[in-house]
Amino acid sequence: MIILGIDPGLGTTGWGVIRSEGNRLSHIANGQIKTNAKAALPSRLLELDTALAAIITDYRPDSAAIEEIYVNKNPQSTLKLVQARGALLLGLARAGLSVGEYAPRLIKKAIVGTGAAEKAQIDAMVKVLLPGVKIAGPDAADALAVAITHAHLAGREKLR
Amino acid sequence: MIILGIDPGLGTTGWGVIRSEGNRLSHIANGQIKTNAKAALPSRLLELDTALAAIITDYRPDSAAIEEIYVNKNPQSTLKLVQARGALLLGLARAGLSVGEYAPRLIKKAIVGTGAAEKAQIDAMVKVLLPGVKIAGPDAADALAVAITHAHLAGREKLR
Repeated sequence: MIILGIDPGLGTTGWGVIRSEGNRLSHIANGQIKTNAKAALPSRLLELDTALAAIITDYRPDSAAIEEIYVNKNPQSTLKLVQARGALLLGLARAGLSVGEYAPRLIKKAIVGTGAAEKAQIDAMVKVLLPGVKIAGPDAADALAVAITHAHLAGREKLR
Repeated sequence: MIILGIDPGLGTTGWGVIRSEGNRLSHIANGQIKTNAKAALPSRLLELDTALAAIITDYRPDSAAIEEIYVNKNPQSTLKLVQARGALLLGLARAGLSVGEYAPRLIKKAIVGTGAAEKAQIDAMVKVLLPGVKIAGPDAADALAVAITHAHLAGREKLR
């Protein structure tokens, strides 16, 4: 199964593609989509969508996974992020992909073993779980982490 | 100029299409898109997108207008609305439409003359401004109001 993980953001969206076969994971590709900060919101959402569609065409994932979002103390600043997430979810649905959604704490627990893990621990474990991976940046690392979480938990769900 | 106004929502998105020629406004169509509350979020965003694309194909608007969103006291409940808005903005951008964004207070001021107008006053003024209109529901009324606001203010901007 090929899994596309997404760490959504309006300025930068991280993405990572992995292969999951039984208990074995391997890295396929990862990167970061950056949008033009000077452009209007609809144009930036279109930039994200165009890049996402190209990734789906290139790597033909079987399913997708994305981080859940929580509104922080400054909700107004989260609005653009949440709209970006909506546009990305639409792009995934248009491609016919089922989408797993995972809370940040669950991702940390799936990767490191504790929901209170630091970002550096996540990065280190992603490198251990995907030997030889070169990570394009922090958002790509988070995207790979959510893809790995999906590989673990989507498989587990079948056993229930 | 044909203007498509949108009142975004995940459960119900209102839409309204008007024609603006000089100072004259006329009604073309309005309605409400409803999505399946039992479906997953990505599927519901796809429902919205499919319906929006059909409206754009049917009425060939020249531009679009949408309400700005503010996060209320319960930001978590706003998350789905904001993602719906992101998906709708993406659909408008994909259709090549420029999008005017207007704050609720500005819409009230443009329609009724005061930013503190009640919803019933907005509805009544929409009916006065678009004689003979039959409004599909409260979200369609709001969508027509934002389209009218765009007709007033997009025109005014050209004079600046």
